[in-house]
Amino acid sequence: MLPPASETAPARDVRPAVAARPELAQALLDRGLGERRAYGMLVELLEVAPKRLAGSPGYEAAARWAERTMQDIGLANVRMEPVMAPHWERGDPERASARLADGSALELSACALGGSPAGSVTAPAVELNGLAALAELEAAGGSLQGRIVFLNQRMNPAARSSFQAYGGAAGQRTRGPALAAKLGAVGVVIRSLSSADDDVPHTGMTRFEDAGPKIPALALGVQSAERLSAALAAGKVESVTLETHCRELADREQWNVVGEIAGSKWPEEVVVLGAHLDAWETGDGAHDDGAGCTHVLEAARLLLACGVAPLRTVRVVLFANEENGLAGGRGYAEAHAGEAHFVLIESDSGGGTPRGLGLSVDEHVLERLRPAGAPLAAIAAERVSGGGGGADIGPMAERAGAPEGSLSVDDTRYFDLHHSANDVLESVHPRQLELGAVVLAYWAAVLADLGPGELSYN
Amino acid sequence: MLPPASETAPARDVRPAVAARPELAQALLDRGLGERRAYGMLVELLEVAPKRLAGSPGYEAAARWAERTMQDIGLANVRMEPVMAPHWERGDPERASARLADGSALELSACALGGSPAGSVTAPAVELNGLAALAELEAAGGSLQGRIVFLNQRMNPAARSSFQAYGGAAGQRTRGPALAAKLGAVGVVIRSLSSADDDVPHTGMTRFEDAGPKIPALALGVQSAERLSAALAAGKVESVTLETHCRELADREQWNVVGEIAGSKWPEEVVVLGAHLDAWETGDGAHDDGAGCTHVLEAARLLLACGVAPLRTVRVVLFANEENGLAGGRGYAEAHAGEAHFVLIESDSGGGTPRGLGLSVDEHVLERLRPAGAPLAAIAAERVSGGGGGADIGPMAERAGAPEGSLSVDDTRYFDLHHSANDVLESVHPRQLELGAVVLAYWAAVLADLGPGELSYN
Repeated sequence: MLPPASETAPARDVRPAVAARPELAQALLDRGLGERRAYGMLVELLEVAPKRLAGSPGYEAAARWAERTMQDIGLANVRMEPVMAPHWERGDPERASARLADGSALELSACALGGSPAGSVTAPAVELNGLAALAELEAAGGSLQGRIVFLNQRMNPAARSSFQAYGGAAGQRTRGPALAAKLGAVGVVIRSLSSADDDVPHTGMTRFEDAGPKIPALALGVQSAERLSAALAAGKVESVTLETHCRELADREQWNVVGEIAGSKWPEEVVVLGAHLDAWETGDGAHDDGAGCTHVLEAARLLLACGVAPLRTVRVVLFANEENGLAGGRGYAEAHAGEAHFVLIESDSGGGTPRGLGLSVDEHVLERLRPAGAPLAAIAAERVSGGGGGADIGPMAERAGAPEGSLSVDDTRYFDLHHSANDVLESVHPRQLELGAVVLAYWAAVLADLGPGELSYN
Repeated sequence: MLPPASETAPARDVRPAVAARPELAQALLDRGLGERRAYGMLVELLEVAPKRLAGSPGYEAAARWAERTMQDIGLANVRMEPVMAPHWERGDPERASARLADGSALELSACALGGSPAGSVTAPAVELNGLAALAELEAAGGSLQGRIVFLNQRMNPAARSSFQAYGGAAGQRTRGPALAAKLGAVGVVIRSLSSADDDVPHTGMTRFEDAGPKIPALALGVQSAERLSAALAAGKVESVTLETHCRELADREQWNVVGEIAGSKWPEEVVVLGAHLDAWETGDGAHDDGAGCTHVLEAARLLLACGVAPLRTVRVVLFANEENGLAGGRGYAEAHAGEAHFVLIESDSGGGTPRGLGLSVDEHVLERLRPAGAPLAAIAAERVSGGGGGADIGPMAERAGAPEGSLSVDDTRYFDLHHSANDVLESVHPRQLELGAVVLAYWAAVLADLGPGELSYN
């Protein structure tokens, strides 16, 4: 956003920079790194509830664990806030294979996408380079009648960030199957949204329209996608067979789990630290978003342990159902519609080494905040950048007109693991996780103590 | 270093900031990330020479590979520059165990330290908390006659960086065995300098004085160190047995491998991009320092491929024998003593995600350089920080009075792997490696084109 007309410039310039709090940073670092509780919390969560997709018994176990952990930490007003969430189940293992001209079968490593219906189809396959190619076909009046569509767009390796690369290809998963079905396709396989070169498929939500047709939709491991593509290019594929056993059940009551450190001066104004408690069941959700959950829990624990009394209320929210519906984020926004939200920060980019804070505010506000980040240069996490936010906090931020942001971490490995069987404890580094919690705690305290209106532009 | 007296301040202030080169950054990123050649080079190096400690046949294979690769890239003046280097061999596998009071044996995961002699000793053990405790004992006139000394200092988990944590404990490896031997000890085991919680031992150089006694010196895996410590504390250990088969052979001729992009304006002034080609043979040296070697090779390739014609000569130097003697760095400084070195940059912190440039110059110079880093914010690597340098470039930098620096990377996982059997290809992330090469290429071009004296304080 460009600065407005020059008459407002003096007002901006006289507002002082936000002061750094080196003693706070030092206390948080000493205690966080010395005690290393974030990793212990993550171990516990993954033991109690490795599988915690919305609607599952695992989600209930996770929510109970979160409630108990918040109480143990000493948060106030700990509660489970009900929301109605979708309930989709994978069912028996899915299968994908290609029948080749020589009579052999090419077995493909695959997993159903969330939202896929059950079904078993065999049909000739056609490969397209992602959602854009599908949309072009639609625009040209093309048909996919009776075909299985193979959407094989790579995540662009030259994208400047892994989230950019993911965003550029994600449409083939989120919207590709619905559009293919509309054009007559009987099944869809996509190249996994993965930055790894292995053969582990990555799941994730796909959205069919309520009134439109639903067809089996699966993701292939990257190596399987490469093999299928080569076989198709060589004219060797007679047909592809897909088999899924998914079930869409009735919505169930789930819970956002909430706890607080009450503000000492402006308790009615809230700084949200959010993450999502649910996770895809292909892995254990160690990074997505077990790491985020432990970031926010440990951040709150550190603030209490270091005797920080924030001026505003710091509220930890572990959201339900981010992965397949966003019921938690929407439900939170409705339930808390009348409350003053000063800022909302999410951690949902994995447990990698923290870089700092991302905040969706004007560059002039970022400039004022940057000096406050200086003490985090000791761990190379002093960065304050624009952008940032999270799916869960989005609905409330929009409703409240509040800025949103995120813990910014090194995410170069994130989409190697995201939504896959490799997203397990072993992929998380204890020190990296703890450093993230420290950075989040520091910024929570700084943001909670800002003067009125300090995050707005004028 | 503090700024000198104020009369020099005006001279500093009028020197303009170094300009950013966004088109260069974009070209390097597009080509580097799109072609991803750094990882391919690393795969090649580890195939050709997974074991390349100074004096080994592997080192010769590595040097030939480096020479060939520099020629393939198109570097000028490619040559192997001889240096005489130590030649130490591990020999047959080492062993460490403790005999317990109940007659059982506690087998310990161990590896000999570089520089250890051969030997087989059994003796009662005494645990000390690192080099400082050993020095205290010496100061108090204590003796370790006939004992095996167990130096069990942890790397401090609350240290602000992994290099700080390493540096704080490294004395027990580098100087502990010599001091223990001086005090009468017959053998030394140390807790590995490792930030991982596994049982993989980490080797590294220990320095005995030529005239002093030499005794078997081994590193224990962290879990083995914990077990031995617990058994000692419980009074269960009757004796410890150490067995090594190391050999110190005659010095051999090895080679620094050198290639250049000739400067277009000041060819006689050199910007060195350095890394070390040798590696401990416990692992394959993928991070230490295969990653650094590919960083500097790919950086040079990218500069040529993008048509960059630097004003000064950019010289790639892959040094011999960093790990057990520094003969390469010392030899380079002698051989090139008369040449003008403008700045020397090393990559020897592993292949993690780059953060930017570290440079041992005054803060005012860093301030002038920071704007030039701005285009690297696209990959969160715009950081320009003080400090930085490398073992190999140190002797030349000192001799020339030239500033030294380093590619700064996320090193939180580095000491999990360093000098251990886990330092293998699988621990390197292709995108992280390539990003490092891009950042190094960018800064090489910027530094090579600076005006005269721009890295000095006045």
